[in-house]
Amino acid sequence: MSKATIPQGTRDFSAEVVRKRNYIIQTIKSVFELYGFEPLETPAMENLDTLLGKYSEEGDKLIFKILNNGLGDPKNIEKSRAAFENVLQGKNDRQLTERALKYDLTIPFARYVAMNHGQLTFPFKRYQVQPVWRADRPQKGRYREFYQCDADVVGSTSLVNEVEFALIYANVFQQLNIDVEIKINSRKILTALSELCHAKDKLTGITVAIDKLDKIGIEKVEGELLQRGLNPEQINIIKKYLGISGNNKEKIKQVEELLGHTESGKKGIEELEFMLNYSSDSGLQSLTIDFTLARGLNYYTGIIFEVKAQHVQMGSIGGGGRYDDLTGLFGVPDIPGVGISFGIDRIYDVMEELSLFPKEVHQGTQVLFFNLGDAESTKAFSLMHELRAKDISCELFHQQSKFDKQFKYAERKNISFAALIGSRELETNTCTVKDLRSGKQVSVKQSDLAETIRKMKPEG
Amino acid sequence: MSKATIPQGTRDFSAEVVRKRNYIIQTIKSVFELYGFEPLETPAMENLDTLLGKYSEEGDKLIFKILNNGLGDPKNIEKSRAAFENVLQGKNDRQLTERALKYDLTIPFARYVAMNHGQLTFPFKRYQVQPVWRADRPQKGRYREFYQCDADVVGSTSLVNEVEFALIYANVFQQLNIDVEIKINSRKILTALSELCHAKDKLTGITVAIDKLDKIGIEKVEGELLQRGLNPEQINIIKKYLGISGNNKEKIKQVEELLGHTESGKKGIEELEFMLNYSSDSGLQSLTIDFTLARGLNYYTGIIFEVKAQHVQMGSIGGGGRYDDLTGLFGVPDIPGVGISFGIDRIYDVMEELSLFPKEVHQGTQVLFFNLGDAESTKAFSLMHELRAKDISCELFHQQSKFDKQFKYAERKNISFAALIGSRELETNTCTVKDLRSGKQVSVKQSDLAETIRKMKPEG
Repeated sequence: MSKATIPQGTRDFSAEVVRKRNYIIQTIKSVFELYGFEPLETPAMENLDTLLGKYSEEGDKLIFKILNNGLGDPKNIEKSRAAFENVLQGKNDRQLTERALKYDLTIPFARYVAMNHGQLTFPFKRYQVQPVWRADRPQKGRYREFYQCDADVVGSTSLVNEVEFALIYANVFQQLNIDVEIKINSRKILTALSELCHAKDKLTGITVAIDKLDKIGIEKVEGELLQRGLNPEQINIIKKYLGISGNNKEKIKQVEELLGHTESGKKGIEELEFMLNYSSDSGLQSLTIDFTLARGLNYYTGIIFEVKAQHVQMGSIGGGGRYDDLTGLFGVPDIPGVGISFGIDRIYDVMEELSLFPKEVHQGTQVLFFNLGDAESTKAFSLMHELRAKDISCELFHQQSKFDKQFKYAERKNISFAALIGSRELETNTCTVKDLRSGKQVSVKQSDLAETIRKMKPEG
Repeated sequence: MSKATIPQGTRDFSAEVVRKRNYIIQTIKSVFELYGFEPLETPAMENLDTLLGKYSEEGDKLIFKILNNGLGDPKNIEKSRAAFENVLQGKNDRQLTERALKYDLTIPFARYVAMNHGQLTFPFKRYQVQPVWRADRPQKGRYREFYQCDADVVGSTSLVNEVEFALIYANVFQQLNIDVEIKINSRKILTALSELCHAKDKLTGITVAIDKLDKIGIEKVEGELLQRGLNPEQINIIKKYLGISGNNKEKIKQVEELLGHTESGKKGIEELEFMLNYSSDSGLQSLTIDFTLARGLNYYTGIIFEVKAQHVQMGSIGGGGRYDDLTGLFGVPDIPGVGISFGIDRIYDVMEELSLFPKEVHQGTQVLFFNLGDAESTKAFSLMHELRAKDISCELFHQQSKFDKQFKYAERKNISFAALIGSRELETNTCTVKDLRSGKQVSVKQSDLAETIRKMKPEG
């Protein structure tokens, strides 16, 4: 007999949590659909070769590998042992493990596009909401199994896509009732900055350091820049850049003065202006240029996004950007793209903290028919049949028990109405309906039951 | 550079397939909800101890085990090597692997109930639709990663639950437009049969043999019964039992004559009659008693179910039954239950074969705005904003290309309408709408665009 336990860093989602999570996920999916994105689902497992070497050495260590089956088979034993020795030496050996759990949604998407590019319609717009697995040390808010939620357009360099993504962010968070700031910048501006510093070779270092500004503050960023080999003069230019402030227009003006004379700077400013122009025609108010936005990932080349929730202390709840090459690693060149993601767990936490989940999210069973005997239950079954046909969820208490036991069940399941059919109701073709939230009780014709339930408003 | 490949026995689901699968899954989920069932999601990974020893020796071999991380760490090498030797000898060793992918939904559900039974409201009615993994040899229709779809009620012995499950089956397949036969039997009838044969110790053998009747025919079943040690006299009784025919009433009458004098027989007949009585009051016509129904699994003790699709050659598309003990293996006794499952992949195949998917399932983008220039696109963005607010999905072609390229994109994405705004439309505040299915074209005021799209009926 084994004790019931759940693996560290993983979670069961009970009804209430599933419903709230689905509310978020369905809202996002429906917006993706509104913008012409199509769903894709890839398997949990990928071939190990597909994943290894894509996430830096650190990432490779966090990939969950799946043991091949049949290792104990007598005719495999010597091979298996040799394979294991390889693994102990840090090599991967297909004899022991050739599959792994996916680590993110981007690489499986790239693998899918590389495998199917001949059949796909480009620009290919897909969204994907699936779990991924990482062998990270579990801690508050960090899990070994968690959902990612991505949308990408590949096969197009048009900024129209970036505008659409900004609109998607705005649309989703408006529907979820979360006040957000959607921050944008262009990696080209950062390139221009590195050029201005005569430190083009240090672009990654500058980007990584700036990316930490939010967390560690300007002094520590300066320290890091020094450490990365930039001199005080260069750091002064970067500080000037980071000090740009005002509204979007004012910021553009300042960055133009600083970087507008460089090729990259000019292009970056054009990108940002394009986004501001188009999005203002589409009802998007919340787009903010933030020149301190850098995004950690190396592969971004154009517009980058980050979304912050207002009124709450929380890291970014969304982010993304443009990249030059999705599938080169799989031998298919020239597929650029742009993508964004939503942080489901963090969005959940924000909505919980600000009490933003609507009441209807919790709706389970609406009506509990009390079980008051066999003939009464037969009648209940036929009435439930009618209610369900009208999309009213209901159930019959499973056995003839004391009233308080049946009430208790309704209360614990958060059921709004009790329907009672006893011998008197059976004779008179009526039904007693009790609103369990208000305590209000009415007797209605059985044929009017569905209508009555519909009319008894929440909080009756 | 690695070649893009997908693991054997797993699948990518592209948009069309995801939409069809979701249509099936959402239909089933909404019916579960109508009947008061609540969603549950458990992690993909379980602790290996939770899974091992639950699926017979054969099953254990098909469990995908996850390699622990950090095996190559110098300070673990000796331990790791010893652990691997254990694994080679067929033992499991937590140093090497302590987690595995779930093999079905039932054991994780049992683990969840065992862990949380103090907090749950009983009867606990949950549904769960998630992938499971099995290291089976891949073949047509059999995958290493596939979805299961289960609903169970635990903590109740009431037959009301069995009636509800029969209704759920009927309701789901009616909504999916699949003609089905819902077959029921009771394991107690099979127990009575074994008693009648004075072969109570051979109940499992009899059940397993009868279960194959559909596939191998009566003669081979006889052969198997002989092989399992039953004598010709006993086999004659079983043949008489298997020969019971007619409508439900006639069948009950015949089984009563054969087994009605035994304790188990009496109980089994009561169960079946209860189901027939209640379900006829609830609009359920398709319930059929089938005494040849046995179900392979050992743990069923009462009513068992199986659903067959009509007009098509296909194994069962659903099945289930009552069991006495869900959580005993995890040290929590006295939780009986009853459950059913839906075979998503087979249901999909049936619907495909009989062309039962409704057209709306394929609906992606409804309107493609042609890209005819910058000012035109700005207008398109503001019109798209209005359309989306009215729940009409649309997109702007990403760049200013030749007409035929834009038409081709619409065609390949199966988009119904093209919206064209050129310089003339821009001047006159109009929009040209082309129904791409009929070729019909109209010019409308921009402010009437949404209404126009709404009105132009499918196939218009």
